[in-house]
Amino acid sequence: MKLSKKNLSDRSDHVYDALIVGGGAGGLSAGLYLQRYRLSSLVVEKGRGRSFWMQDLRNYLGLPPNTPGRTMLQQGLEHFLSLDGDYLNGFVEDVVDEGETFAVKIKVGKKDSLYPVIRCKYLVAASGIIDHLPQLENMQNVFDYAGYNLHVCLICDGYEMADKHCGLFVNSEAAINTAFVLNWFTPYITVFTQELCEVGPEMRHKLREHGYELVETPIKRFLGQNHEMTGVELVDGSTIDLETGLISMGSHYYNEYLKGLDLQWKGGNLVTDSMCRTSHPRIFALGDLKEGLNQVSIAVADGTSAATAIWRDIRRASPPRLWEAHLSKVEA
Amino acid sequence: MKLSKKNLSDRSDHVYDALIVGGGAGGLSAGLYLQRYRLSSLVVEKGRGRSFWMQDLRNYLGLPPNTPGRTMLQQGLEHFLSLDGDYLNGFVEDVVDEGETFAVKIKVGKKDSLYPVIRCKYLVAASGIIDHLPQLENMQNVFDYAGYNLHVCLICDGYEMADKHCGLFVNSEAAINTAFVLNWFTPYITVFTQELCEVGPEMRHKLREHGYELVETPIKRFLGQNHEMTGVELVDGSTIDLETGLISMGSHYYNEYLKGLDLQWKGGNLVTDSMCRTSHPRIFALGDLKEGLNQVSIAVADGTSAATAIWRDIRRASPPRLWEAHLSKVEA
Repeated sequence: MKLSKKNLSDRSDHVYDALIVGGGAGGLSAGLYLQRYRLSSLVVEKGRGRSFWMQDLRNYLGLPPNTPGRTMLQQGLEHFLSLDGDYLNGFVEDVVDEGETFAVKIKVGKKDSLYPVIRCKYLVAASGIIDHLPQLENMQNVFDYAGYNLHVCLICDGYEMADKHCGLFVNSEAAINTAFVLNWFTPYITVFTQELCEVGPEMRHKLREHGYELVETPIKRFLGQNHEMTGVELVDGSTIDLETGLISMGSHYYNEYLKGLDLQWKGGNLVTDSMCRTSHPRIFALGDLKEGLNQVSIAVADGTSAATAIWRDIRRASPPRLWEAHLSKVEA
Repeated sequence: MKLSKKNLSDRSDHVYDALIVGGGAGGLSAGLYLQRYRLSSLVVEKGRGRSFWMQDLRNYLGLPPNTPGRTMLQQGLEHFLSLDGDYLNGFVEDVVDEGETFAVKIKVGKKDSLYPVIRCKYLVAASGIIDHLPQLENMQNVFDYAGYNLHVCLICDGYEMADKHCGLFVNSEAAINTAFVLNWFTPYITVFTQELCEVGPEMRHKLREHGYELVETPIKRFLGQNHEMTGVELVDGSTIDLETGLISMGSHYYNEYLKGLDLQWKGGNLVTDSMCRTSHPRIFALGDLKEGLNQVSIAVADGTSAATAIWRDIRRASPPRLWEAHLSKVEA
């Protein structure tokens, strides 16, 4: 059921089999499976994750290609609740490993917040990432286009950019290399560094060799209407026409709550085995938090794997259920 | 587009980037991604795979839990065709590795069959498995219940069997061990061997200890109505009431076409890396054909991984696209 400040105390003594941090595609998939394995799970969702922002989920089998990410999430949440899963809007602040259980401190409510501590046997980290966006004075101007024709994922949306004049918005020289993957889809590339990084002579030469333009002057705003970006205005007042855009400015990982735990990392990603188990036997990591592709389909499968591994652990440690009545009949 | 005997010749000289054997969840997902990577792909579907038979797909995020497998497949096929993927109803009989390409011999049409040979750079094996079913005189009697409350997958449908009297239908002594996983969901288990295997004294003892019943007399037919199985009639005329059933008689792997190729196997499964690449660098295996869970979500993610790996290979081997007009402008 949906938990809130009002009914949170109903669960204060309950130890969940698994607490899932994040109600995106991976977390909800894990929740579905856990509930169907007759385990108890709680999904804690802070709201507005990466798939929430997708205007069109175009590459997930079974859904029409114009399905908004939030429609998939809403369907998944209803499904999870129908299986008696628990769901709480909140932000996981801290996790303490108590040996047999984890104590998870959650901030609930932006005003007059409560800070319940909820216990679970297994922790599923499915809190994902969020893309860094250009920081303009008026961020609403960015939100008007991001997720529409101003994309953040080349794998997801390269197809949408095919043969269009594309602005590539970066914040580091390394990120400029995205141009040399983006060019599979379109060679009409203008790179915008927004004066956020230096560009060395080698990179300048490489861009020139490919015919790609480099603009270092900061952007004042995106131009366009009805969520269709048509170019940018720079701070010097000049404008550049564009047909689409790709933001490649890195991501923020929602993993602060894991930092105090003994886990193996590879860069910003958690190292996991083929069932999404981290180096800690009772912590699993799904989707964007772990190594591999940041795709909805991968996160959903990760939820399947993690839930199955948790079920196997708990099942194997439990005494078998006997057919008692029949047993006494046989003995009699 | 949909290919058939009539328009097959339109593609006779085309070398596909990838030919996908199997239009189930994995194959169609691979196809979506390949087409969105602007590669050319052909899905060859023999019809009536495992997900086609699912009456309710209850554990796939984003679809309501009463969605038939065939609805998901139909949506996926429409999606794939909308991206200009090619689709052919046919049966892959043989694959010859020609070095740079594969020559794939396909049987098209049950009567007056054609046997076109189609070439591709990469092969994606997504042809899946099908469950062995009890072989009764009247197979329609089995089909009336299989996929309804006579299940074939414990991970998918254990939840549906919870606390119900379940018939477990096996064809080997090893398969009887399924009872000791099924008992997570229900302890009310009657094992039916149908005289297809011997049962040793240890297994008999173990079943007795748990209170589970063993019936060795062959089944004559399933009893029930409206796709709801309510028991079995044995060949001796006696009947046993049941509330649900699980068939655990192994699977047939659709992988005959791969047998002549140099591939690494583990039991019946293909060994793959994390991107679903087999030991052959240009052959990928998805879903049920490879090691791991036989779940729709896993197959869909496998399609994502394989398509991405193929795209990376092809992209890295291709010359970069230059902004020609701009290049001459810069040089001028």
